[in-house]
Amino acid sequence: MDEFDLIHRITPRSLSHQEIEIGIGDDAAVYHTKNGYQEIVCVDTMVDGVHFLSSHSTPADIGYKALAVNISDIAAMGGFPKYYLVSIAVPFGWHASDMEAMYEEMSKLAKLYQMDLIGGDTVSTKGQMVITVTVIGEIKKGKACLRSHAQPGDVVFVTGELGSSAAGLSFLLEKTPIKNKAQAKYFINRHKRPTPRVEAGLICSRYHHVALNDISDGLASELNEIAEASRVSIDIYKDLIPVHSDLHTLHTRWEEWVLFGGEDFELVGSISGDQWEHFYQDCSVHRIPIYQIGRIHQSGDAQVFYHNGQDSVRLEKKGYNHFKQDR
Amino acid sequence: MDEFDLIHRITPRSLSHQEIEIGIGDDAAVYHTKNGYQEIVCVDTMVDGVHFLSSHSTPADIGYKALAVNISDIAAMGGFPKYYLVSIAVPFGWHASDMEAMYEEMSKLAKLYQMDLIGGDTVSTKGQMVITVTVIGEIKKGKACLRSHAQPGDVVFVTGELGSSAAGLSFLLEKTPIKNKAQAKYFINRHKRPTPRVEAGLICSRYHHVALNDISDGLASELNEIAEASRVSIDIYKDLIPVHSDLHTLHTRWEEWVLFGGEDFELVGSISGDQWEHFYQDCSVHRIPIYQIGRIHQSGDAQVFYHNGQDSVRLEKKGYNHFKQDR
Repeated sequence: MDEFDLIHRITPRSLSHQEIEIGIGDDAAVYHTKNGYQEIVCVDTMVDGVHFLSSHSTPADIGYKALAVNISDIAAMGGFPKYYLVSIAVPFGWHASDMEAMYEEMSKLAKLYQMDLIGGDTVSTKGQMVITVTVIGEIKKGKACLRSHAQPGDVVFVTGELGSSAAGLSFLLEKTPIKNKAQAKYFINRHKRPTPRVEAGLICSRYHHVALNDISDGLASELNEIAEASRVSIDIYKDLIPVHSDLHTLHTRWEEWVLFGGEDFELVGSISGDQWEHFYQDCSVHRIPIYQIGRIHQSGDAQVFYHNGQDSVRLEKKGYNHFKQDR
Repeated sequence: MDEFDLIHRITPRSLSHQEIEIGIGDDAAVYHTKNGYQEIVCVDTMVDGVHFLSSHSTPADIGYKALAVNISDIAAMGGFPKYYLVSIAVPFGWHASDMEAMYEEMSKLAKLYQMDLIGGDTVSTKGQMVITVTVIGEIKKGKACLRSHAQPGDVVFVTGELGSSAAGLSFLLEKTPIKNKAQAKYFINRHKRPTPRVEAGLICSRYHHVALNDISDGLASELNEIAEASRVSIDIYKDLIPVHSDLHTLHTRWEEWVLFGGEDFELVGSISGDQWEHFYQDCSVHRIPIYQIGRIHQSGDAQVFYHNGQDSVRLEKKGYNHFKQDR
């Protein structure tokens, strides 16, 4: 594949953002920024065999997810995404048409948010495909939703059902038998095509001192990060966590999917109790699902407790701590 | 290797830029921008076995070059680099100490320019190491040195000797026998540790309508890019191109190293004839080497001609066109 030829094919014919002075086609992209705004930047890498399986995902799926997970990081700051850059190490044997399908799908997703492709790099590799996406976004000055913003008394919320991505992965890897094709397809889609919660993040950024994370590594991990950064402890309640109504029928370990599965790319955060009602109404008006799942409590050892009806267990980043906690 | 542990070790203890609100440690980095400036962003990927050989380069070498080539892209716009993000796909078998050595060397290079590490991603791969660096810089509004800026009558210049990186690679790959160790070391160092020409780029940005590229793909390729973007033709002269005094003794094909070798990461550009003297003096005062190698001539078919004393050949991006040109 000729790199110059590919660059020509993927270079956008028009740009959404007039702030771009130079996009693709020079040593680097150049753009203006807006007064009163801050820049947000993140980067994420996906590797074939680790983050996806090219045997199970189409080039379009891979491109979609590589961009979506980065948009999700911008959403998790309360920002809106504007630009993206794509670096791909392409294995020998991939065709130009595969690459085009990948860029095409990214372009479709980007259009939803009026994002522009402004740079990247395409190189060969003798190994697996590695795709790295950089996304740059904006947020009003001082409005970023930081992990360190949680305060005692805050309501803890999520934006959608958890565990579905892990269920989809389990179907994909044939660890869970497929009994109902339409059902399996739903969960697999949740795994392959997560929706970044940009609109929910933007609403969060309008409120005061909202803490926010996107659920890439699992609810337990994200909550522990908020607890550590904010030096608070967190209580969450099994009965309040939204899950798909079929989830418990798929596997006896469905609860682990919910808590540790990750890759749902819903947002989890906290907001003060006195803003909660207004925030909840605001989300309803915009048809953004929002669910209270717990509370922040008094600062202490930065722990996360999971109340499952019978008892309370401490959630570590990567698993349960089955010893009963002294509280 | 534990990712959280690595993140902890590589997170800078202090930051050079006060504009950073959040660096490493949230979903994305957040920073302020300065009034009157534009942002510049670029990304480059290096793959083991393609862009470097981990058998011939230390982790420190690899880290150095991955960052240096991106700083060079910012320099080639006339900008100054401020932030970097590092994404690495790490093969099994690499040790935490290798990773630390890599980040440590990047940190040393970054300090020269007061750059801050503000994000990244570290993932595992069953394949080769792939390292992707994103660099963000700044430039005064409207001062970017674009490829499209060359105009008939401009002086064409480079900032240093060409072909030395290719010579070093030839030594490394044992295609050129080493007769003098100190000499070979010099050239290998030019290949492994290119110096981004940030200061030269900054001087360029103070002048009007300078065209600029960094020489990553070879002089011929970079000049063709300028010719195409500016719709001009370019004459360069063999006798004017700066090369190391030993270069011609190393290999009969040394001239190909100079024209097509690439990876010298010197800057090549053009500036109007009436600014040239002042620009040259300015560079001298700052001890920045600068060499006129040719002239831009009347707009036409965007071609590059190489005058070697006997005749003139057209330089294609990737090689000579040995057919004599009708001019």
